[in-house]
Amino acid sequence: MSDSPDVETLAAGVLAGQRRALARAITLVESARDDDRPAAEALLARVMPGAGRSIRVGISGVPGVGKSTFIEAFGLHVVGRGHKVAVLAVDPSSKVSGGSILGDKTRMEVLSRNPAAFIRPSPAGRTLGGVARRTREAMVLVEAAGFDVVFVETVGVGQSETAVAEMVDMFLLLLLPAGGDELQGLKKGIVEIADLLLVNKADGDLAAAARRTAADYRGAVRMLRPANPPWKPVVEPVSAQTGAGLAEAWETVERYRRTMTEAGALQRRRAAQARAALWTEIEEGLRAAFRDDPAVAGALDDAERRVAAGRAPPAAAARRLVARFLAGPRFLAGQGDPR
Amino acid sequence: MSDSPDVETLAAGVLAGQRRALARAITLVESARDDDRPAAEALLARVMPGAGRSIRVGISGVPGVGKSTFIEAFGLHVVGRGHKVAVLAVDPSSKVSGGSILGDKTRMEVLSRNPAAFIRPSPAGRTLGGVARRTREAMVLVEAAGFDVVFVETVGVGQSETAVAEMVDMFLLLLLPAGGDELQGLKKGIVEIADLLLVNKADGDLAAAARRTAADYRGAVRMLRPANPPWKPVVEPVSAQTGAGLAEAWETVERYRRTMTEAGALQRRRAAQARAALWTEIEEGLRAAFRDDPAVAGALDDAERRVAAGRAPPAAAARRLVARFLAGPRFLAGQGDPR
Repeated sequence: MSDSPDVETLAAGVLAGQRRALARAITLVESARDDDRPAAEALLARVMPGAGRSIRVGISGVPGVGKSTFIEAFGLHVVGRGHKVAVLAVDPSSKVSGGSILGDKTRMEVLSRNPAAFIRPSPAGRTLGGVARRTREAMVLVEAAGFDVVFVETVGVGQSETAVAEMVDMFLLLLLPAGGDELQGLKKGIVEIADLLLVNKADGDLAAAARRTAADYRGAVRMLRPANPPWKPVVEPVSAQTGAGLAEAWETVERYRRTMTEAGALQRRRAAQARAALWTEIEEGLRAAFRDDPAVAGALDDAERRVAAGRAPPAAAARRLVARFLAGPRFLAGQGDPR
Repeated sequence: MSDSPDVETLAAGVLAGQRRALARAITLVESARDDDRPAAEALLARVMPGAGRSIRVGISGVPGVGKSTFIEAFGLHVVGRGHKVAVLAVDPSSKVSGGSILGDKTRMEVLSRNPAAFIRPSPAGRTLGGVARRTREAMVLVEAAGFDVVFVETVGVGQSETAVAEMVDMFLLLLLPAGGDELQGLKKGIVEIADLLLVNKADGDLAAAARRTAADYRGAVRMLRPANPPWKPVVEPVSAQTGAGLAEAWETVERYRRTMTEAGALQRRRAAQARAALWTEIEEGLRAAFRDDPAVAGALDDAERRVAAGRAPPAAAARRLVARFLAGPRFLAGQGDPR
């Protein structure tokens, strides 16, 4: 990161709620450069005590459901209730480079101009894990900067919903006024992780269909085990266009937070998420070191092929590869010992 | 494993379909002793070309659904159609030691005495990963011994259903004639991975309730995205007691196999499962080495506590722990290099 201010100045700016400092701080944690990492981690450690006080809402839905329009309308409603709203995104398919092209901003023009809102487009990244980590870290920064409502948007590609569900307090799924999951193009398991399902476009010609779809999903959801007891998933029609149902949706978010907090479930969920994130990071670190190991690389391709073809048992192949890895020299002499 | 015959003799016995050799072979792959592992892996590699030709069906359901009675009645029906049926189990909570106490046999007395059936109780093991691996390996052995239908039973504890779904061709879920998932005590996500849902106890007083439950689930399942396209999940009432619906259930299994095979989906599913198993084994190997590392152990507890409390960012904590691990000596000098 060229021309970067020192960590202390940046941290102070973030904690004071300065938008410019916040934007630079996010760019720093999103940087793919290894030499930016120590500063990014120092910054996060520094502002962490100021984070954690928002309600974190994941928002997903298939393309065409009107997600941007919904987030803009919902965000403006929430801002109107006196909150500060940050919108982050998890999009492992995004080609936008780390925060320098604010492509998403044009999608939510009115909200993005509101001083109580902060919209950050998807960080670029090759892996979902990398993108998820950066979003998790950006969340810490926007919270430290005083945003008390965080929307984490997912594009609904790959496993991004699960990744988002693992970093938020509540998962909101936008539905179309249409048939079941298959017709909607919804992914397997996605309905089951939703705490609030909103059937969008409940206006004009589609109002009746939206109500019907909501009733159908209400029936289906009753058959499923709730993701976050004691909370029972809620299904409602909504219109981002007319604003109908937005106030009720926000009340539901607040009720969710209250219910979960009183049961101690929100606290437990966050602790479990943080522990899981630690292990995900550990496993990614180990896997990266394993994949990058020259002694492993060639043998790995061959083993994968043979195992997939049913010609070699997975356990034996894995044991041999791991033994190769563990036997190799990890750090060159003279590079120092990080212990 | 005391008194073990050599691998070649054992492999020949398994491939010839000798039950005694098969039982000993399974005991060998289930052995928790590190020094049994080379022989186990050699045996698996040796019989692997004879495996892979069965239809693998995972069977799950909450306690009280009548799983043993169902598997016995269903197994006898399938044997009656000229097949050879093996029943394996994944039960991470099992205290039964590796195959020496055949506790489960008493559960399926008639089936277990049938010469065309082979029932093996759960291997003991502390981790689901370990238990799943042993079941996966036992499956290779029973297939090599000529069993062309394999039922993998799960007790419905922990994540065992997912583990089973990841090693079978088809997932069969037994339901009670009762309300939705929550009432049934079903786990989140379990309905979504099922290819065939059977509402058991469709006899006597419960026949009407079973039909109603089947209709309810049929509606719910239609709202969900199928786990294995082009297959669409089927829901039917069945009675293990009277045998009603068992023939239809078996026809559905055969139809599933045909549909999936013709679409190339079964082949793809198996290749993906094998690759995933390889990576699971690699990751378990890396994780075990990491956890056992003396330089990591103490720091890990502290890091987990701080991260869970929201006092430290996961990525930084993970990076430090992994660096410690990679910097440490892996093999003592003089123990040889496994490359």
